[in-house]
Amino acid sequence: MSRALDCRFMALALSLGRRGLGRVWPNPNVGCVIVRDGRILGRGRTADGGRPHAETQALAQASTAARGATAYVTLEPCAHHGQTPPCADALVAAGVARVVVAAQDPDPRVAGRGIERLRAAGIAVETGLMEGEARRDLAGFLNRVERGRPFVTLKLATSLDGRIATGTGESRWITGPEARARVHMMRARHDAVMVGGGTARADDPMLNVRGLGIDRQPVRVVLSRRLDLPLDGALARSAREVPLWLCHGPEADAAPWRALGAESLSCPISAGQLDPAAVLQALGAAGLTRVFCEGGAGLAASLLGAGLVDELVLFTAGCAIGAEGTPALSAMGIGALAEAPRLRLAGQDRVGGDVMSVWRASGG
Amino acid sequence: MSRALDCRFMALALSLGRRGLGRVWPNPNVGCVIVRDGRILGRGRTADGGRPHAETQALAQASTAARGATAYVTLEPCAHHGQTPPCADALVAAGVARVVVAAQDPDPRVAGRGIERLRAAGIAVETGLMEGEARRDLAGFLNRVERGRPFVTLKLATSLDGRIATGTGESRWITGPEARARVHMMRARHDAVMVGGGTARADDPMLNVRGLGIDRQPVRVVLSRRLDLPLDGALARSAREVPLWLCHGPEADAAPWRALGAESLSCPISAGQLDPAAVLQALGAAGLTRVFCEGGAGLAASLLGAGLVDELVLFTAGCAIGAEGTPALSAMGIGALAEAPRLRLAGQDRVGGDVMSVWRASGG
Repeated sequence: MSRALDCRFMALALSLGRRGLGRVWPNPNVGCVIVRDGRILGRGRTADGGRPHAETQALAQASTAARGATAYVTLEPCAHHGQTPPCADALVAAGVARVVVAAQDPDPRVAGRGIERLRAAGIAVETGLMEGEARRDLAGFLNRVERGRPFVTLKLATSLDGRIATGTGESRWITGPEARARVHMMRARHDAVMVGGGTARADDPMLNVRGLGIDRQPVRVVLSRRLDLPLDGALARSAREVPLWLCHGPEADAAPWRALGAESLSCPISAGQLDPAAVLQALGAAGLTRVFCEGGAGLAASLLGAGLVDELVLFTAGCAIGAEGTPALSAMGIGALAEAPRLRLAGQDRVGGDVMSVWRASGG
Repeated sequence: MSRALDCRFMALALSLGRRGLGRVWPNPNVGCVIVRDGRILGRGRTADGGRPHAETQALAQASTAARGATAYVTLEPCAHHGQTPPCADALVAAGVARVVVAAQDPDPRVAGRGIERLRAAGIAVETGLMEGEARRDLAGFLNRVERGRPFVTLKLATSLDGRIATGTGESRWITGPEARARVHMMRARHDAVMVGGGTARADDPMLNVRGLGIDRQPVRVVLSRRLDLPLDGALARSAREVPLWLCHGPEADAAPWRALGAESLSCPISAGQLDPAAVLQALGAAGLTRVFCEGGAGLAASLLGAGLVDELVLFTAGCAIGAEGTPALSAMGIGALAEAPRLRLAGQDRVGGDVMSVWRASGG
């Protein structure tokens, strides 16, 4: 099989895997394609909710034709008995002759054992094809396994001068309808949407995905040290329909919120506020792999200041608000420019009448 | 002659004209091409300093071969005797058979009379070819004739959150070397670089074009109501080498600055500060057609607030400074979002590691 064809089939497996973004947590959004003699016999991706796994579904489609075929998998097949039998065993049982793997699974229960098991059964295994792209697609899962916390995307939508509201608090709308629709698409590709308590109080947001006809809503995460949020707001009223997780300080009384159907996560305080790293660790422990933070200025500044932003999406609108407006980032305690967190530009585009730029952490 | 060929020669004339940007004030940056039988016989642009005019130079190149040729001119040929004889007469005398004009000249001394004179001599005249592009290239001149003030480009170079310096005043450098080099190119294409007095005090800038090997520096314009600028700063020291124009209030004492070689323009005060519209009228009356404003936050906000920004160039760097930083725009007195000045996106691009976006006034 030529490398060009290998890349074509792996690219297909990756695109299948990406369809699972925001829908498969706590599991990885894997894609799999089974090919023999250049013909695609089966395709699969991790199903919504995390199972069945991609390999299981692709093998089921291929059925007995999988014997002697090549399987393209974006992540090393699992080797441990979870709620489903190991995918490595399923590939062996189906009689595939060759497995091409993009990224190895750092999960200590797998970590090379999936590949070992395939090789022990006489299957030719190649690893590392399109690994960079796979690691980016699987960044949520990999982040959670390797760092214990979800991949964090921070969205800012500002005026030309970096303001997110006027001095009187008016923020609807700074950016145009195309940018706002893009934000809903981004929400749908994350496991959770996260805001600080100030934003929840000021905007009374629903934080759900609208206008895309999706049946699976991201978890809504609100950080509020004292849980001083309105019990009759949009979030409270919808807590039984769309998951609502509240991260709060140890002293807050979460009982009324649990009675409304919300989950509560008690998190440690640091320097008078919820410790953002600890909050993310708690969210990771609860299974989230991709979190989309939409502010406000305090939470955004504390995530950036703590080096916890993996990707930043900035929408810039063509209006000028001036210094009375609400800044996109609150105080960060930065004196020298060398202390300012720096991200590198990953791309920029026009979205309607606004500019969207995407910035990544140096390691990302 | 086909329309496609006409467009090709006019595009050439326009590109010649653009070479004059920032170099020909108070005159328009015109381009001219003389063509016969598909062959280019002469090319010209308004020379540095404003004369000779484009037509004069193109006709001189073509010499007697201009008889029966077509002249492509980006702006209606002048019809009045200034320091040079009218270009319309020169085209008639050369015996050209046809003149294609992109934009008509709104200067009341011309305003259709150039075209009339050509037609009266039996020359076929066509107008309006690539007029939109020509009007954009000639926006400085047209603005000055039609509105009495130069075309104003405002440059902002900010962090992700719209800051131009840290809380301790450190601003070098937020954007990268590629963006800074681009700014020097932009300076060179304007008649003048303009800043407020606060920026002149804080940064002690030279405001000249560096690294491009040009022999003609833009005028440096500083707005300072009280002229409370250091008499031993970089601007003062270089006032004899590079033009320095100071716009100040009626009460300021400009004598020490004139002694250093600077020009002084006394301008009216409005609401306790130099009236930005009056300052621009004074600069227009003094001959400037294109002004490049580089801040600071106060001047930028007052220009935007008064609707005096024709084009805004925003460089966005990948660093986060937070709310203690200096905002790109100072207070604008905006309450409702509907009051915020809006510009429309004209384009966006990566420049080094930064994003450059260009925004234009709705009419521009």
